[in-house]
Amino acid sequence: MPEGLAATPEPPYYAVLFPARRTPADDAGYAAMAEAMETLAARQPGYLGIESARGEDGVGITISYWTDLDAVRAWKQHAEHLVAQRLGREKWYEHYFLRVARVERAYAWSRPGVTGRGS
Amino acid sequence: MPEGLAATPEPPYYAVLFPARRTPADDAGYAAMAEAMETLAARQPGYLGIESARGEDGVGITISYWTDLDAVRAWKQHAEHLVAQRLGREKWYEHYFLRVARVERAYAWSRPGVTGRGS
Repeated sequence: MPEGLAATPEPPYYAVLFPARRTPADDAGYAAMAEAMETLAARQPGYLGIESARGEDGVGITISYWTDLDAVRAWKQHAEHLVAQRLGREKWYEHYFLRVARVERAYAWSRPGVTGRGS
Repeated sequence: MPEGLAATPEPPYYAVLFPARRTPADDAGYAAMAEAMETLAARQPGYLGIESARGEDGVGITISYWTDLDAVRAWKQHAEHLVAQRLGREKWYEHYFLRVARVERAYAWSRPGVTGRGS
């Protein structure tokens, strides 16, 4: 699987869409927490993958993928994740959306001859 | 609505998730086409909004929002969009996913005192 994209299975599964606008505050703390949360999410039951992109304008999008709504709910309520959510509202975010969506169809394309790197 | 985030209505509605890894080729042509497609999408029936973020590692995520599957299908088949899709496979992308998802729940948060800019 190409680095940075999630090797999701055949639908259906769930996606948690998290587009956000950052404050200018505490880049280092934010980056450390984002990395810790990606590592922690990957150890939760029902986790399927994560994709994340953040531009220089401060708008970022993270999408995490889960087998079902129970897995989505359990991750939302995970104790360490709750701390991260609180710190996000206190320091790191100006605005965000949280959208829970059921993936119904999916299609992957790779350039012929390009080999994926990483997981 | 804060700049860069989409002012979506109450669910349900549809999201088209488009995470992609770019080639290093033709940044200017890619940027021009991305902007043209955002403008064109916004004029289509059933369009609800778009969010996009691209990091320096070449991984980007664009999410467009639509009222229903008919609107998703019509945009996919729009003549100018088909040209953009072909050029994307020829020049701009190494890998991508296209996922169609039904948004079932959504929640917005804004920092108290922060006023949204733009549309």
